[in-house]
Formats: sequence, C-alpha cells, structure tokens
Amino acid sequence: MRIDIITVLPELLQGPFDHSIVKRARDKGLVEIVVHNLRDYTKNKHRKVDDYAFGGGAGMVLQVQPIADCIRKLKSERDYAEVIYMSPDGERFSQPIANELAMKGDLIILCGHYKGVDERVREHFITREISLGDYVLSGGELGAAVVTDALVRLLPGAISDETSALTDSFQDGLVAPPVYSRPAEYEGWKVPDVLLSGHAANIEKWRFEQAVKRTKERRPEMLGD
Amino acid sequence: MRIDIITVLPELLQGPFDHSIVKRARDKGLVEIVVHNLRDYTKNKHRKVDDYAFGGGAGMVLQVQPIADCIRKLKSERDYAEVIYMSPDGERFSQPIANELAMKGDLIILCGHYKGVDERVREHFITREISLGDYVLSGGELGAAVVTDALVRLLPGAISDETSALTDSFQDGLVAPPVYSRPAEYEGWKVPDVLLSGHAANIEKWRFEQAVKRTKERRPEMLGD
Repeated sequence: MRIDIITVLPELLQGPFDHSIVKRARDKGLVEIVVHNLRDYTKNKHRKVDDYAFGGGAGMVLQVQPIADCIRKLKSERDYAEVIYMSPDGERFSQPIANELAMKGDLIILCGHYKGVDERVREHFITREISLGDYVLSGGELGAAVVTDALVRLLPGAISDETSALTDSFQDGLVAPPVYSRPAEYEGWKVPDVLLSGHAANIEKWRFEQAVKRTKERRPEMLGD
Repeated sequence: MRIDIITVLPELLQGPFDHSIVKRARDKGLVEIVVHNLRDYTKNKHRKVDDYAFGGGAGMVLQVQPIADCIRKLKSERDYAEVIYMSPDGERFSQPIANELAMKGDLIILCGHYKGVDERVREHFITREISLGDYVLSGGELGAAVVTDALVRLLPGAISDETSALTDSFQDGLVAPPVYSRPAEYEGWKVPDVLLSGHAANIEKWRFEQAVKRTKERRPEMLGD
C-alpha cells in the first residue's frame, strides 16, 4: 500500500511516521508513505500557496493551481483508489472506514490548512472527504496522521501479534474490557480474582460481560439500543 | 495554560508541537506544553513500563506504578483541572469540549499505548476519558496532539486574526461555507459571481445559505432535524 500526503507543513508529520508501528510497517515494506510539500508545486516565485478568500473575511485559502498540479502528477504515475481531503465537514472517520480503506489500494490524502482549500479542488479532484470528528484543528496534518495510523495497524504483519488488532475496541461491535497487569495488588488495589484464576473459560466470560457492560454505559448506540 | 503529556513515545510528539500554531502559541507564552517520558518514572532497571495482561491474551498493558508516580509528582507541583486519558471508549471529543477545556486550567493528558493502561490507573487517577472518535490508533499520542491543537487555537492571541477561529465550522452550529481564492477562473472553473461582487450583505447571505445547505446535507443532526 502507498499513501501520498500533500501538505504545507511536511515537518509536522515527521514524528508520527518515523516511530512505533508506522515506522516498523514502513521498514518491513508493508506501506510506503510519501509526504509532498505543496510549495514544491507552486508557480509563484515566493513559493506562496495561499491567498485571501474572495468575498473577504479572516483566514487564508489554499489555492487551486499547486494542488491541481501535485494531484495530476501523482495520478499520472499510478492509480489511486481515493483522493481524500481531511475536513471537519467530511464523513466521520470510523473503524469500518479504516477497515475499508486499508484494503482498497493506494491513497492520496490532501491536508487543508488555514481556512481550507479552494472549493474547486474539492469539486474536481477529491473523491472522499473525511473528518476525525466534530472539532476544528489547525490543519489536516494530524488528521492525515490519524487516518494513516489507523490504516497501517490493520495491514497484515504491521502489529507483531496479529490477534491484537482483532481484539481492539469496535472490531467486534463492543468496546474493549478492562485490562490489568502486574502487580496483582498495588497499594491495596487488587486485580479481579477471575483474571488470576487461570480458568480460561471464566476469563473469557468475564471479559465479554465487562465489554458488554462498558459498551452499554459508554456507547449504548453500538448495541442498537 | 499548561498541558503535561505522559507518554512512552515522546519523540512521536515533536513534529506536532514544534510547528505552526502550537509552536507560535508556545513562543508567545500562551501555553506551556511539557512532554514526560513514562520510562523516567519506572523503578524497573530495564526501564520497562509494560507487562502482559493478567488472564492472558495478546498485547501489552502499561503498568500502574510509573503512571501513578508521574501523576502524583505533577499534582504535588500544581493543581490540575483534569487528568485526561485518551481512550477509544471515552467521551467523544467535540468542539464544545474543546471550548470548555481551553478555559478550564492546567491539564494532564495520559497517552495509552499497546493494549491500554492498567484499569486501576483509570479508577484512581483519571478524571476524564476522551476519545477522538470510534476508531483505534496505536496509542494516545496522536489523540493528545489533536486535543492540544484544538485547545491551543482557541487561546486568545494564538491565531493571528482572532476572528478566524470564530468563523470555523461548529462554532455557530453550522459547518463552514465553501471558500475560494485567486484566480477567479481556473481552467474554466469559475468562482461564484456573488463573491466577486463586492456587495457585503449579499456575500453574507450567500455564505449563510451555503453553510445551512451544507450542514443539511452533511450534518443534519446539527440542525436538530
């Protein structure tokens, strides 16, 4: 899988892609992540890629030309399954979307910044708009990092123990049950006896009950209530 | 405002906090962001901070002791309004929560990693659990970066033109209307005439109508339909 990310702030994405699971997946060749600096595509001699909004008002807008040129160049080199724009008014990102995108093929992710991108980019180049949630961030870069992380951890081989991703929250329609690790008692706070019992069936039963209980309390809509 | 972030992967957070709006807000003294390496608080000689889950199963769990010691040390030095744990089963992050937290006081944000943190940490130290949305990430680090970014941009003076944050999506219960910038025509794709008219009242009216239309199409629940 290849993910091309277009941004005015490539340096912001260094930390998230150069460590942990994403780094290991890159090192193993499971995913290729290429970050493109939008300024490399402008024809403006000052490398400017934004300008004021027509009609006035605060905030700068990313212009059509550099984005159009960058996307066209990438599309001339290979096929992309989606050209994604990170936007707070896009489709809300979710585990099913992550599962779908992880299997779909190569992706372009365009990060908005400032007041957003010229609407003509959205009309003519973007195939899918995704939002992390109902909140506003300084730009789409963290969104691109989140989507990439969620996708990469689903690629076979990305997580050392593959069963780990399958027992994540949401994959079975429930949030995860509580987890505990050593010591069995810390300052009087004890781990539930059943987890120390060694009785596999009882442990499974307890975990399922806890997951249902927690889902009822925190995400009742996931149970269709 | 001060935000203390506790993580096993401090290097992952360098990019997001050292650029753009968050960097400027730090440089101006509007916010102090301190990233703590959880490994500095372990008593384990190998700097290990995680162990297997009691009861078996895939994935490692962050242990109580280093987290307890780190949070206690911070709380001995100042008061915190909230001790937040980033978790997919937490309260879903939203613009109202960002607005509330930006005014609330100093915050600790604990980033889970691997399979999560020992439940006793959540029971005894965490005052609020926040989720970016219904999807699973490798750790809480990107979540902490997202929450921090959403908060910092609301601090007075963080954005050069303060009115910019007020016209963001969600702040008025609507998603933002389309924006356009130069050129007025690009490969035959034109900017709507009204935005070039110079007629302020008509522009306002068009923007409001577009915002309502787009909200109806994309987020009907925001209009209470």
